Amino acid sequence: MRLQVPGYELLSQANTLSYSFSGTGVNVAAGLANFGYTGYLISALPDNAVGDAALSYLKKLGISQSFIKRSGKHVGMYFLENGFGSRSSRVTYTNRLESSFNRAPEGIYDFENIAEKVNVVHFCGISLAMNDSVRSHMKSFAKAVKEHGGTVVFDCNYRPSLWGDGGYENAKPHYEDMLYLADIVMMNEQDAMHILKMETEEASRREQLMKLIPKVAKKYGLSVVAGTHRSINKDNKHSLCGFIYKNHTFTFSDTITFSVYDRIGAGDAYTSGILYGELESFSAEKTVAFAVTAGVLAHTIVGDTPMSSQYDIQKAMTESVGDVER
Amino acid sequence: MRLQVPGYELLSQANTLSYSFSGTGVNVAAGLANFGYTGYLISALPDNAVGDAALSYLKKLGISQSFIKRSGKHVGMYFLENGFGSRSSRVTYTNRLESSFNRAPEGIYDFENIAEKVNVVHFCGISLAMNDSVRSHMKSFAKAVKEHGGTVVFDCNYRPSLWGDGGYENAKPHYEDMLYLADIVMMNEQDAMHILKMETEEASRREQLMKLIPKVAKKYGLSVVAGTHRSINKDNKHSLCGFIYKNHTFTFSDTITFSVYDRIGAGDAYTSGILYGELESFSAEKTVAFAVTAGVLAHTIVGDTPMSSQYDIQKAMTESVGDVER
Amino acid sequence: MRLQVPGYELLSQANTLSYSFSGTGVNVAAGLANFGYTGYLISALPDNAVGDAALSYLKKLGISQSFIKRSGKHVGMYFLENGFGSRSSRVTYTNRLESSFNRAPEGIYDFENIAEKVNVVHFCGISLAMNDSVRSHMKSFAKAVKEHGGTVVFDCNYRPSLWGDGGYENAKPHYEDMLYLADIVMMNEQDAMHILKMETEEASRREQLMKLIPKVAKKYGLSVVAGTHRSINKDNKHSLCGFIYKNHTFTFSDTITFSVYDRIGAGDAYTSGILYGELESFSAEKTVAFAVTAGVLAHTIVGDTPMSSQYDIQKAMTESVGDVER
Amino acid sequence: MRLQVPGYELLSQANTLSYSFSGTGVNVAAGLANFGYTGYLISALPDNAVGDAALSYLKKLGISQSFIKRSGKHVGMYFLENGFGSRSSRVTYTNRLESSFNRAPEGIYDFENIAEKVNVVHFCGISLAMNDSVRSHMKSFAKAVKEHGGTVVFDCNYRPSLWGDGGYENAKPHYEDMLYLADIVMMNEQDAMHILKMETEEASRREQLMKLIPKVAKKYGLSVVAGTHRSINKDNKHSLCGFIYKNHTFTFSDTITFSVYDRIGAGDAYTSGILYGELESFSAEKTVAFAVTAGVLAHTIVGDTPMSSQYDIQKAMTESVGDVER
Amino acid sequence: MRLQVPGYELLSQANTLSYSFSGTGVNVAAGLANFGYTGYLISALPDNAVGDAALSYLKKLGISQSFIKRSGKHVGMYFLENGFGSRSSRVTYTNRLESSFNRAPEGIYDFENIAEKVNVVHFCGISLAMNDSVRSHMKSFAKAVKEHGGTVVFDCNYRPSLWGDGGYENAKPHYEDMLYLADIVMMNEQDAMHILKMETEEASRREQLMKLIPKVAKKYGLSVVAGTHRSINKDNKHSLCGFIYKNHTFTFSDTITFSVYDRIGAGDAYTSGILYGELESFSAEKTVAFAVTAGVLAHTIVGDTPMSSQYDIQKAMTESVGDVER
Amino acid sequence: MRLQVPGYELLSQANTLSYSFSGTGVNVAAGLANFGYTGYLISALPDNAVGDAALSYLKKLGISQSFIKRSGKHVGMYFLENGFGSRSSRVTYTNRLESSFNRAPEGIYDFENIAEKVNVVHFCGISLAMNDSVRSHMKSFAKAVKEHGGTVVFDCNYRPSLWGDGGYENAKPHYEDMLYLADIVMMNEQDAMHILKMETEEASRREQLMKLIPKVAKKYGLSVVAGTHRSINKDNKHSLCGFIYKNHTFTFSDTITFSVYDRIGAGDAYTSGILYGELESFSAEKTVAFAVTAGVLAHTIVGDTPMSSQYDIQKAMTESVGDVER
Repeated sequence: MRLQVPGYELLSQANTLSYSFSGTGVNVAAGLANFGYTGYLISALPDNAVGDAALSYLKKLGISQSFIKRSGKHVGMYFLENGFGSRSSRVTYTNRLESSFNRAPEGIYDFENIAEKVNVVHFCGISLAMNDSVRSHMKSFAKAVKEHGGTVVFDCNYRPSLWGDGGYENAKPHYEDMLYLADIVMMNEQDAMHILKMETEEASRREQLMKLIPKVAKKYGLSVVAGTHRSINKDNKHSLCGFIYKNHTFTFSDTITFSVYDRIGAGDAYTSGILYGELESFSAEKTVAFAVTAGVLAHTIVGDTPMSSQYDIQKAMTESVGDVER
Repeated sequence: MRLQVPGYELLSQANTLSYSFSGTGVNVAAGLANFGYTGYLISALPDNAVGDAALSYLKKLGISQSFIKRSGKHVGMYFLENGFGSRSSRVTYTNRLESSFNRAPEGIYDFENIAEKVNVVHFCGISLAMNDSVRSHMKSFAKAVKEHGGTVVFDCNYRPSLWGDGGYENAKPHYEDMLYLADIVMMNEQDAMHILKMETEEASRREQLMKLIPKVAKKYGLSVVAGTHRSINKDNKHSLCGFIYKNHTFTFSDTITFSVYDRIGAGDAYTSGILYGELESFSAEKTVAFAVTAGVLAHTIVGDTPMSSQYDIQKAMTESVGDVER
Repeated sequence: MRLQVPGYELLSQANTLSYSFSGTGVNVAAGLANFGYTGYLISALPDNAVGDAALSYLKKLGISQSFIKRSGKHVGMYFLENGFGSRSSRVTYTNRLESSFNRAPEGIYDFENIAEKVNVVHFCGISLAMNDSVRSHMKSFAKAVKEHGGTVVFDCNYRPSLWGDGGYENAKPHYEDMLYLADIVMMNEQDAMHILKMETEEASRREQLMKLIPKVAKKYGLSVVAGTHRSINKDNKHSLCGFIYKNHTFTFSDTITFSVYDRIGAGDAYTSGILYGELESFSAEKTVAFAVTAGVLAHTIVGDTPMSSQYDIQKAMTESVGDVER
Repeated sequence: MRLQVPGYELLSQANTLSYSFSGTGVNVAAGLANFGYTGYLISALPDNAVGDAALSYLKKLGISQSFIKRSGKHVGMYFLENGFGSRSSRVTYTNRLESSFNRAPEGIYDFENIAEKVNVVHFCGISLAMNDSVRSHMKSFAKAVKEHGGTVVFDCNYRPSLWGDGGYENAKPHYEDMLYLADIVMMNEQDAMHILKMETEEASRREQLMKLIPKVAKKYGLSVVAGTHRSINKDNKHSLCGFIYKNHTFTFSDTITFSVYDRIGAGDAYTSGILYGELESFSAEKTVAFAVTAGVLAHTIVGDTPMSSQYDIQKAMTESVGDVER
Repeated sequence: MRLQVPGYELLSQANTLSYSFSGTGVNVAAGLANFGYTGYLISALPDNAVGDAALSYLKKLGISQSFIKRSGKHVGMYFLENGFGSRSSRVTYTNRLESSFNRAPEGIYDFENIAEKVNVVHFCGISLAMNDSVRSHMKSFAKAVKEHGGTVVFDCNYRPSLWGDGGYENAKPHYEDMLYLADIVMMNEQDAMHILKMETEEASRREQLMKLIPKVAKKYGLSVVAGTHRSINKDNKHSLCGFIYKNHTFTFSDTITFSVYDRIGAGDAYTSGILYGELESFSAEKTVAFAVTAGVLAHTIVGDTPMSSQYDIQKAMTESVGDVER
Repeated sequence: MRLQVPGYELLSQANTLSYSFSGTGVNVAAGLANFGYTGYLISALPDNAVGDAALSYLKKLGISQSFIKRSGKHVGMYFLENGFGSRSSRVTYTNRLESSFNRAPEGIYDFENIAEKVNVVHFCGISLAMNDSVRSHMKSFAKAVKEHGGTVVFDCNYRPSLWGDGGYENAKPHYEDMLYLADIVMMNEQDAMHILKMETEEASRREQLMKLIPKVAKKYGLSVVAGTHRSINKDNKHSLCGFIYKNHTFTFSDTITFSVYDRIGAGDAYTSGILYGELESFSAEKTVAFAVTAGVLAHTIVGDTPMSSQYDIQKAMTESVGDVER
């Protein structure tokens, strides 16, 4: 549950918040639902007014509730204060330890049944940071998907604040377990160096990437690795370049520079674009171009969750920004 | 009736709209009312709560209601979603076919009486696209104005979505009828080439303009032709250059580059500036400078309708942007 | 699309509107979705930003989009100004003639296929007032449902403003066609007297009802007839008494008196309660008690569409209003 | 300028205000404009953004700006906090001493010219409390109106907080000056007893009224005296009974009891109803019924200023409150 | 932190929340600060944006921050949906287990020092339900206050949802510990019967109260016991009767019936009124009258926290509700 | 009291305002309160709802109310309309003549007592423009502070609109009185040239500054003089360079260029930064760097009053703007 201070006020100044429900899984599933696929969420929500509101919001995003359980008493929440110019945006997390998702009991999800029904399952490094019970859920489910011939997607999404001190060391074995189970992985060279402790003598990010990602793909048996390089310019614009590594070949998108309205969740729009390209058997060039455009559009839209259809994205890929259309 | 999603949300995300009432005629009349003239609107509004709200809004803009009829049941409406950066603004029209204006019966307006009382009448190409009944109203009224010695202004304002396929061919005879009746015309070289099917071998817009507009003026017997060239820069700023053609001479304004807050209706502010210059017998230089500044200011103000007085505009013409005044 | 002035302002005073999407069909389907059934809507929406917003809203209500077509360019809209005390609420309709639903071409809906997949279909007298094409759609679909063994529900919902002068006469044959096809009908004695031209010498509403409804049920072969009697008290509170006629027997609910926050759509909550009772094979006593409570709760909730689950309603049936729970 | 805390928050709790422009004169003129008359305001507004906003608001109310001068630097303002149940509404005035109206210089208004053009002029006891300059303006203008055959209306509207200690004594000579000049006077027995120091031995308000008003009418030569008796019930509803004294005869309206949404300015709606009845030569019965209904409706509408047309009022006079109309 | 859905929407319908910071301790301290005393809060807040906002809000309420520690990472939160008529208000708590207050480490508060500086300390049964660490803090502090000659106030405030199954049995020893340390206790006969397991054969609440409270006072050595009886009427109004037991004598206030705008925290306003009466040595009659009026006013004001000064309350005690004052 | 039109609307367009309470003194005191000092305000506020709201707001800013008197009836107010791009922000003042501060009677403040308790007192040139009574208060208080060994800060803050025609001549003797009493002065070369009539033949602002400020410091015996040079770039960004002159040496900060969200009060953030540096005995380099960063951050935050703690500022001094932190 995202609780956002409207406009550019601080939490200490305002007295209203707008709320929405999101998370990497929600965003990726909603992104694919926008493209015409059926998205599911495997999660647990409390059976109270907050859970009702979350469910109602997920329905609005077009996510099927078939696999959502009502259990526990809380949802994870965070506060967002928008930055302006030289003042950064600020996220303050509330307690997630007791969330329905984190406290979901063993056996609550029928993984065998779900694995039979779905083709592609997306796992996220943020969930992996939660606790042993969640990690156990994730690994069991990934195995079940594998066994039923499904595709396992793993998004590294390492969040230092969630793993704490000595985080990389604690995280490594769990990341490796997931990597061995995965087919498609979202990551870049930072993850290889920091989590997987791989080394390279290259100095530039691009060269580090091109050295390390093939090693990762080989070691863990990955068919696709994709990710982005982001840089933030002096005028507060962002630049984004997407890549995909597949069949031993790197393909990079153009680097696009753009104004940012809502940064959060834009990476998940990129992920859903990559998955869409793979599901539709796009060429690698078309996939990265589509994914990076999906990511850029998501920066211009309020909220964590991508709202653009494949037609919106294709239109944005071929057109320059124009005058108002009427 | 303009229904605008607040901030930068999509219609699918928000649940509130702000509304106002506008249209080319409203905007030009309100612009001239801001400059101290009495503005009238010749139109029809339904006799219900929506018509009451429209009337109340027109009153606020300083437009006299003397010639507004209560008839029919609906007003034309459109939805506006604000774009951000690389995402364009989007307009969605609702059904206008049954609007009070479009369904106003023959004889509802007493054109003879109105033509006696007003000096200058502004007609718009958007109305011309509506239906035969509206077109017939327009031409009868323009003739009546001519006969009573008034000035007929015609604003080409061609909207492809309203004329449909084969639109230019359908539109041409009606545009020509209006041009033969007009004294002052708002247009540029695009209108001459696409609607009037005039040809030129020049490549640049400026040269096309300078070739074609004198031919138009001569053919249709126009005393003044005015318009703008707009370009949209990479950083989403717009550049605007105004021109006026009069007494066989072109006068161009400086090209001004500026940030855009609300694009819609800004062209009408330019038109009202040209008309003000003509009514006040400004020099051509002063007229285009005034009009283009009126247009630029209108881009910085919420809503379709210009809100600046002649003093605001003159101040903006002579001053650079400064610190807050106090 | 409902466009509501917030608070108690008039449309002439305010400048913001809140919007939602509703209609009898939406409300009944959403009501049943709240009770755990899968609700579908057979309708058409434009393929633009307004259609996207409507779809997004329907998803939020838990209504499956499987049978919704994207066609045409407009949706029907109405404005709502809240009354206060002695000032009534006011509804202003916009043009519905060109709505996607009303202009949906012959053959757009695959009625055979739909009739195979659904158990119960709800038809509404408001749709019946639209035009011949819609009426033809309705009757074909009702026949297909019958043939596939489904249940046809018909809600009389006569709206004088939609049928115009001589409305009852025009409406009668179409109402009779639907009644002959229907199994469950929502109506009361007013419909019998005004539309079906039945006569009775009783003076009180209750006695008229008890005379006429059995005749209606017999003539058209209906298994269930249900409806309400509403009265409005001096202090602006409403009183509601529900009835159901089934197996030659009338069952009445208690008369409940309550404060009204949002009147519109509350009748549809009653309808969904009746259908739920029938689907769950409740006793007649339990069905009317459940339905009338569903109706009363809907008066306390913003928006046209019922939001209460069967648990909320059962709780409200057994409990008196208490202090805040915590 | 009314600055109102939205909802039921205190000024110490909220951080937004809504604003509008009103005053007895504005309200009465707007009320008559709603009934189809042309309303003018004789006042002064500052030539700055606040004056512009006021002018824009007056335009919206349909008040002609012909006689409004731009002069001085300030407008009078007040804050309004809505009461709830047992907590009363609270008004806090800001400084009015330096308002444009109060500081308008001698000779700024061309009273001779105005008196020629208008038929009825309304004066208010609140203005009379301001300062000697305003009082001198008022008396000169009333004399000019008389001389040109116009009708002078005087509304006693005594406000204790504006006259201070010993207020009745200070006010009396000025009230008498206005009464001698007036034709129609709005007042009740309280004004006669407190300001004019008339005495009666009656105990009930109705009997005091019936004793004193004929004496007032005789002494000052008034053709019409009208007013209301208001009482506030235990359940926070108000009861209102209007009267008119004319041709030596009292006519009373029914006593109406109703819920109150916005109390302020409702008395001015009553006044505009009385004036409308007089201007249209209604019978005394119809005039008080119309006026008291106008007053009741004004209590149900946000803002100081009446918004109802004569059709709205006549509809409310003949109908009971019903269900939503559609 | 209270997160409230504006107006009467459900959490599933709205998308904005207003927030404030409250709690029994905050409310009682703020209530006394309104009466001119210096209020302190002994608590812990996280050192992040949420803690900053809380601190800023406490400052606004006039509560000194001297004894507030920055520690831990979270604050307790709850969601509030306003009921309407027959639909009750609903509170949904978020996880409090990890709140800064509940996780405050041993020794964080310097109780000796605080006990020296303050005269009266208020403890609340809600805190007592938290965990052993909080209970240990409470008892140590109460002892320190006693030793330094201060007054210990204990407010029973039993919340079933916080103590869970078998709650009364678990709670009893802790309640008794606090009662033995207390001087002034807020409770009624329900607490005596349910928590303290006292028995009586009386049937009416008033008689139960008058039997049991003297026993409680005697057993635990209390100088003052005070509380209220609340009942909720059919028309959703509440009735409140306050009592105080002191010097072996009961004093009851009048029973006041009133409309409720915001129920939450109104009991704390009553408590602050009792404490004010004791601190100012009011007669028992004046104390209960003052306290119950403070409680009633708090029901008419948005937010948990009382906002009325002693002057507001005294004015409300002596006046009936009147017309708007100006 | 600042009354701000939300977003970018004009006062003529909007109908809501947000309000806050500020002023140079408030801003500087709140800035120092953010840094951990106790800030007081020596002022007078009316004893009504507006005064209560102001007090409540000051409490929120962490300003002690110990020295605030309740007296008079009004507070000074101003309206703020946000500019956009080429349209400047606009401030409209309301009448300040009758404000509680300006009408505070002789002897209301106990300057001897206050001077004993505080270390540093800040005086502002805006107050000096008010009237003779305020000026007399200021000088008496400055003398008392001096006598008790406190530090006198004087901020020149010359506002042409407040001093009127011939303003520099009228202001000069009062400014000189304050300068002779001051220790730390906020000003730049403009003040020296225009108010103090000092002359220099230098052409650049920097050189004029470096010539004149040492003369000022010498003549009036000032230990510290500090201020800024601001310039406004073509793209509406501002550039700010701070300086401090102390021990016969100038120290300049880097010139920082940044986007502006809320200009008003940002100079006061700079002042509070200078005072903090002096109180904490920072080096001159650190003081100007801290102060100019405080000023820049204040431009990115809504409202007149600085909201950043010393930690926020130090973080902003050492870090570049980054991605969202989480």
